[in-house]
Parts: sequence; structure tokens; C-alpha cells
Amino acid sequence: MVEAGRATLFTDNRYTVQAWAEVHGAEVEITGKSSLVAAGARLASLRGRVRAGFAPEQVTVQQSTVVSQAAGKRVRWTPVAGAVEGLRGVKDAGEIAMIREAAILAGRVWVSVLKLVKPGVTEIELAAEIEYGMRMGGATGPAFDTIVASGPRAALPHGRASAKPLEKNELVVFDLGAILRGYCSDITRTVYLGRAPRKIKGWYAAVLEAQEAARAAVKSGVTAGEVDAAARRVLERRRLGKRFTHSTGHGLGIEVHEAPRLARGDQSRLAAGNVITIEPGVYIEGTGGIRIEDDVWVQDGGAETLSQARRELLEL
Amino acid sequence: MVEAGRATLFTDNRYTVQAWAEVHGAEVEITGKSSLVAAGARLASLRGRVRAGFAPEQVTVQQSTVVSQAAGKRVRWTPVAGAVEGLRGVKDAGEIAMIREAAILAGRVWVSVLKLVKPGVTEIELAAEIEYGMRMGGATGPAFDTIVASGPRAALPHGRASAKPLEKNELVVFDLGAILRGYCSDITRTVYLGRAPRKIKGWYAAVLEAQEAARAAVKSGVTAGEVDAAARRVLERRRLGKRFTHSTGHGLGIEVHEAPRLARGDQSRLAAGNVITIEPGVYIEGTGGIRIEDDVWVQDGGAETLSQARRELLEL
Repeated sequence: MVEAGRATLFTDNRYTVQAWAEVHGAEVEITGKSSLVAAGARLASLRGRVRAGFAPEQVTVQQSTVVSQAAGKRVRWTPVAGAVEGLRGVKDAGEIAMIREAAILAGRVWVSVLKLVKPGVTEIELAAEIEYGMRMGGATGPAFDTIVASGPRAALPHGRASAKPLEKNELVVFDLGAILRGYCSDITRTVYLGRAPRKIKGWYAAVLEAQEAARAAVKSGVTAGEVDAAARRVLERRRLGKRFTHSTGHGLGIEVHEAPRLARGDQSRLAAGNVITIEPGVYIEGTGGIRIEDDVWVQDGGAETLSQARRELLEL
Repeated sequence: MVEAGRATLFTDNRYTVQAWAEVHGAEVEITGKSSLVAAGARLASLRGRVRAGFAPEQVTVQQSTVVSQAAGKRVRWTPVAGAVEGLRGVKDAGEIAMIREAAILAGRVWVSVLKLVKPGVTEIELAAEIEYGMRMGGATGPAFDTIVASGPRAALPHGRASAKPLEKNELVVFDLGAILRGYCSDITRTVYLGRAPRKIKGWYAAVLEAQEAARAAVKSGVTAGEVDAAARRVLERRRLGKRFTHSTGHGLGIEVHEAPRLARGDQSRLAAGNVITIEPGVYIEGTGGIRIEDDVWVQDGGAETLSQARRELLEL
């Protein structure tokens, strides 16, 4: 944005055709060299006082140096963290429809690979089947590297799929999402290979109860921290509070992680039209982990869960 | 690196298990909150003059602000662009073996999907088959979003796979790579659906000649710019110089884009043990594009091409 009401995308000639085809509502300037240098030069050419905002969470120190040197000393730079992301927080009906479709696709694909979940198959093979299924269902790709984490690896909240084969009597966490026409989904389901011992059934029930409590707490006007607390309270009551090592969820849209963050004590208020994940989990080092995640549309007075796959513990 | 000879990885408790399992040669400090704050605090606790380097091409302005505030005014910060990447430029024999395996896998998978390349199949379906094949071949995933670009879309050097179905009498560009045990490959092949017109055969021959000329120019001691010039000279002689809108290649390793960059006029010298891509291309807006890319191991007095799939024009 170099003048009030006018937007320009600066890009280089690798993207000429794509920019003309895909950019709406902004001018396109194709530059022979660095688009940062071109953007800086444009700012330098403006008359009067020039103040430029930038996204400090996106721009590297190097990029910042290049663009501000090109703009010269007359341009004053102001970091405006979250400004662009904030514009995307409230989704319109068309965006909700696309996230819903992406969420349903992810759930359907997860259900379709359950028949392959047995001892001997590797985590990578299952991840490959999931990503293949999402693409065949119309996705342009996965929204992130699909997580399939079994046995002790399920204790890694961010463990990607590995070459480890599944074994009998293990928990298996699936965390997957699709990008469908530009919008992301993000769901998690956990299954047990074999007959689950009573202890694991107890953990699973606690996570599910926490997840339902958090989903029930969602409506416009509540703080992100209140939704997080609803999940955390259930797990603390079951003496699992310390096993829940991450936040309850995050916004979702054209990026898989957007504002708001549903972290402990977060005071930002949910608004009708936000789409957020609700994903409490417990992680027991050496044994495994359990996480259940759905995508939820914040509304006035309540919420609607967009993802649909069943949540009860499956013993396969 | 907070003291000479000692390295510490600061990370948070989401990564506890993974850090202990995967980090070698460094201490691990798990922090309850931001790892940047913890790293800054450690620097602040050191005695004497403290100078800290950081990677300005990796660190965002926001991260830089957080860590430097935590470290306080006594710590002096110096951007050291490319320092970490530079350490990785020369690969040892084990690393070469892994890149070779990843390159051969990518080529094999590309050959295996050729039987599916016919009018009506969509770009996304082919990309899904390719990524599925790479994973079933042992890859932890694709090294980047697989490009399948057909017809006019082939004129987009960075066009991802779309829902467009392939049509008769089109060029189709495949740009794919696998991550195998942490190392990336990156190859490109272009085919024609139908009998290629003479003009397209001419363009293809020019790109192949440019690619071979650039590969023949590779050896330790030459500059990156000389290799780029070898490809560019061939295309300029064929009046296609302006159609070659990007650089000739880039380094390859644990990241798919590493130093060195094989750009016009680049004065950095290739060293034995570098692994680089050689990927000239021509792009004709409205018609399509042709790119041929291989992974090349720089040696004293020459080079070895690690990727193996055939390079002659296939008319399918």
C-alpha cells in the first residue's frame, strides 16, 4: 500500500503471467531485479511525509535492510504486527464454505485410510495415502506436512511421519489438513491399535471431554484465554494439566496458523466469523499421546463445528 | 553458539522429546516460554564483552527485537548473512550419497508416472501420484510442492500443480524433488503430449544444449557466473536469451535452495563437494515452457551428474 486506497504488488519477472492472472484489486509492477528495491524506490518517489508500515513477523532483518536502504532516509518505517493477519480474522460466508469443504475432505480422507491402519504399515506410508487422498479429493495439497505419530512418537506434538512401522498396542495420532481453493483445514484424530488398556481409555475420555468443553465455550465475545481455560480445567481435574503442553488452538484460513491464538490467559476476544481449531492433547513420554482437533466457526451466542469425523476412541 | 566451541539449542517444551532424540553436538535447553527470550537471557548472563551473530536472512524483525531486548544493551549484534549456509556448502561423501539416492528416486518416480500422462488427467492428480511414489520409495516427503504445469501454465516457472486437465498438443513441465533421510533432490523434465511441432522441437533442443553446456562447464574453481553464462550463451545464439528469465541453478542439500546461486555474473567460485542444480528454461507466454534440470556434484577438474532420468524429448 503506497498511497491511501491504492495497493501495488511488486514482483519480478518469474511471476509475470501468474501475477496478471491472479491479482485482483491491486496494481502489479513487474521489476527486472529485486521487488524490494523497486518497492523502496516507489516510496522514495512519493511527495510529502512518507510513513511506511511493515509486518515485522514476516519481514526478515535482511529484507528490511534492503527495502529501507532503497527507500532512503526520508521514509519512516513502523512495524505493524498482525495488521494484515487481523484483516483476515473474520471470514465471510464464501470463506466459511471453503474451509468447511476442506475440513470435511480431511475427515473423509482420514476415515478412508483407517482400513490400512494395522501393525507393519509405516507412518510415512499412511501419510502418503492421506495426502494422495486429499489431492484426489480436489485439494491442491496438504495444509502442512501430515503427522502420523505412533507409540512413543505420539508423545511428540509436532512429530512428522517417520519410517517407523506401527505396532500392536500403540496409540496413533493423525494430524492432517487440506488446502482446497486456497483455504486450509486442520484436524487431529487418535486411535489405538488393539484393545486399549483402562488407563489409556481414561486419558482419551479426558481429552475428549476437554475438547467438548472448549468447543462449548466458544462464542463471539469470549476471550481466547477463556476457551483455553475450559479445556485446561477438565485436564487439571483429571491430573493431566501438566501433560497438556501446548495451546488449545489457533485461527485458520488461507494460512494454517492465523490469529487468534487460543493460549493460556490470552485476552483477545473471539468475533463472529472467526474460524479456530480446538485441539487439546496429553503427551506421556515413552508411552504416547492423544490429541483431538476440530475446526470451529465462531458465531454470535455459540459456534458450529465444521469438521465431522467421529471422535469416539477407535480400537483397531 | 554462546561461547567459543559450545553450541546450545534453545527450544520449548513442545519439542522436548524430539530435541533429545535428534540433536547431536549441542546442548539442549528446554524453556517454559519463548526460546528467543531464553537465548537472549543466556547471552545477558555471560561475562565480559558479548558479541552475538545472527542470520539476517532467517531472523524476522520481530524475532530480532525479542531476542535483543532479552539480551539487553550490553550485547552487540552483528548480522552474518550466509554464515551457517556457508558451512554446509561442501558436502562429505555420506551427504553426496544421500543426495544421489534422493535424485535417483525422483527420476525413477517421474518415469513411473509417465504412463498416466495423457489428455484428461489433471496436473494435481499427477502431482499426487508423484508425491505418493516418492513417499512409497522411502522419502519423508517432497522437497517442495511438486510442479506439474501444462500448456500455457508451463510458461509459469513457479506454477504449482492446478486442477487443469492436460490436453493434446501441450508441453508439460514436471519439477519435483524428494527429501530422503534429510537430503533434497530437485529435477525437472518436460514432455510433449502428441507430435511436437518443429518449433517446439527446436526450443527443446536449445534448452537441452544449454543444459549440457552448463553441466560441461562445472568444475571446482570456476565462478557460478561462468556456468550461468555457458547456458545463457547457447540460448542467446538461438535468439532465446530473453525467454530464459531465471538463473541457471542453485546449491542443494538439507535445504532445496542453498548457496551457491548460479546467477548471471555471480563471482563466487564453485568448490569440490558442492552440489548444484543446472536448470535452464525458456518460457513463451500463451504457449508454454521447457525446462530441464539435473543435480550435479562439483569435483576437481569436472563434475558428476547425480540424477539419471532420460533427457531426450518424449512425445507421449
